Amino acid sequence: MIECPVPKRGYDRIVLGHGSGGRLSADLIDSVFVPGFGGATLARLEDHATVALSEPAARIAFTTDSFVVRPLFFPGGDIGKLAVHGTINDLAVGGAVPRALSAAFILEEGLSIADLSRIVASMREACAEAGVEIVTGDTKVVDRGKGDQVFITTSGIGVVPDGRALSIAAARLGDCILVSGPIGDHGVAILSVREGLEFETELASDTASLHDLCRALLEVCPSIRCMRDPTRGGVASALCDLARASKVGVRIEESAIPVRREVRAACELLGLDPLHVACEGRLIAVLPRADADGALSVMRDHPKGRQAALIGEVIAEDPGIVVMTSRLGSMRIVSPLTGEQLPRIC
Amino acid sequence: MIECPVPKRGYDRIVLGHGSGGRLSADLIDSVFVPGFGGATLARLEDHATVALSEPAARIAFTTDSFVVRPLFFPGGDIGKLAVHGTINDLAVGGAVPRALSAAFILEEGLSIADLSRIVASMREACAEAGVEIVTGDTKVVDRGKGDQVFITTSGIGVVPDGRALSIAAARLGDCILVSGPIGDHGVAILSVREGLEFETELASDTASLHDLCRALLEVCPSIRCMRDPTRGGVASALCDLARASKVGVRIEESAIPVRREVRAACELLGLDPLHVACEGRLIAVLPRADADGALSVMRDHPKGRQAALIGEVIAEDPGIVVMTSRLGSMRIVSPLTGEQLPRIC
Repeated sequence: MIECPVPKRGYDRIVLGHGSGGRLSADLIDSVFVPGFGGATLARLEDHATVALSEPAARIAFTTDSFVVRPLFFPGGDIGKLAVHGTINDLAVGGAVPRALSAAFILEEGLSIADLSRIVASMREACAEAGVEIVTGDTKVVDRGKGDQVFITTSGIGVVPDGRALSIAAARLGDCILVSGPIGDHGVAILSVREGLEFETELASDTASLHDLCRALLEVCPSIRCMRDPTRGGVASALCDLARASKVGVRIEESAIPVRREVRAACELLGLDPLHVACEGRLIAVLPRADADGALSVMRDHPKGRQAALIGEVIAEDPGIVVMTSRLGSMRIVSPLTGEQLPRIC
Repeated sequence: MIECPVPKRGYDRIVLGHGSGGRLSADLIDSVFVPGFGGATLARLEDHATVALSEPAARIAFTTDSFVVRPLFFPGGDIGKLAVHGTINDLAVGGAVPRALSAAFILEEGLSIADLSRIVASMREACAEAGVEIVTGDTKVVDRGKGDQVFITTSGIGVVPDGRALSIAAARLGDCILVSGPIGDHGVAILSVREGLEFETELASDTASLHDLCRALLEVCPSIRCMRDPTRGGVASALCDLARASKVGVRIEESAIPVRREVRAACELLGLDPLHVACEGRLIAVLPRADADGALSVMRDHPKGRQAALIGEVIAEDPGIVVMTSRLGSMRIVSPLTGEQLPRIC
């Protein structure tokens, strides 16, 4: 008896058999995922990955996010890059050091394998930039019309250094609120593709890994109360969560908030509030006033924080509420996003 | 200024806004996920969960799986139970102690919230049985016709005890192969619902957490080489993976493999090989011959292993190949599942 070879079948599109757990699944793993992601742990194909930590840890950070963005490819990024950045950022903003990622794919029958390979390559690149690897994964295939090309769920684990305890419930009176750059780029970049808007200059998503900016900030300002990446729901929802969880008021200054001209114009056209539009590579940091100047200069010295700004403060009045002082001096309540104006932005 | 209450809106079905990251997302989290899953870590709603280990660990087990089973509810279980069991099992069969789970939901617009709540309750029950919690999660909503009610991705982390190194590449000549019970129940239970097959007695999925059976086995037989739960692709694909990774031959005895009468009958009717049909609560263990009797009696003393059997052995001939001796004494090569005969079984 001789070993039956498992030929690489010449499919250029995903078929249901690629999710069967049998030969076609193995082919897809061997020809796309293992070489595409490139890691040695993934290549072992055990039921779980074993992640060795550089030293024993008592607290593990753990996070997960599904990505269903439409279209798959957009100016400045793609669903794969977004999935890697999003999960790294959820670890990093909590003060954890990202250590390993998983990726689970739900593919629709008919997806082009070229597109899938392009997404995998993009994920690998995003991982490499942050010094992490995809160490385990899964693939399911759903019949045509029961999915939308590809959905990706990434999960991540990291190590929480001893003594670190950032929390959205930790804001205190007098704290300053910083943002690392212009807001709303990601959401408007996606909408501009969907709605066919054109700008004089191409507006790209801000999708980026914030691990290095977070690390730099924490080195200089270990007293940071909380960091957040304002994704779905935008800066407004992130600050409303903060006000609610910390039982404090938050006041922001409209004129201090960096918003690109194109983003402002698109928001006016589409009837959106830039405060509700998702970013995918911006950081909000809440920290004691005494540390604000230092933090701001760390941010501005970093390539991902050049346009950082101090946008507001934590106040005693109106706990649970976010208010904004407008350019004209009037005050308004900032509400979290209501309704469905920005579906499938990430 | 007074705090604007966030009323619980009276939706009975999922709308796109439930995935917006704004008010409706918060409502869904507050009314379904946080009370449904019940854990204190999840209720903090930070960007990541911080999982405290009972003592510092140097090796973390990490796994992920997406679940797209159709129908959502079936005899013996549902998509939620399957998602929890599947991820616990991927940790447990590698010898890790499951510690925490995450759950990411991709919901289709129009899903009934009653069905979602029922799935969440079922997940909680499955977690409680295994002593783990859902500590972090995510929800996305896709437009009607771009998903199929609900897809769930669970990820899990666990602790790998010092010195433990189970691997599908670790099988050695003379090792015995044990299975913990009848094979193919899950796959046939799903297909019987889809195809409208009826049996004299209801055939239920075997979906179950194997954490306790794995732990009991490892206590008695620390020399176990490898454990696997034969899900998609069935026992055949699991053993083919083993033969390939360990570079050994595998011989199994058809007459020794436990298969329920209903499963055998349904497989004959549908033209399936029971070796290709998924189990979701069965264990394959590979271990030295000297430990086989002990392991078999541990399995049979356990509620999840009453019908355990020794089904085969690792041989020197034909490395990479699985052969089966039939009831009539003839030999045939066992191939991994080819094609798409069992889509969306998990």
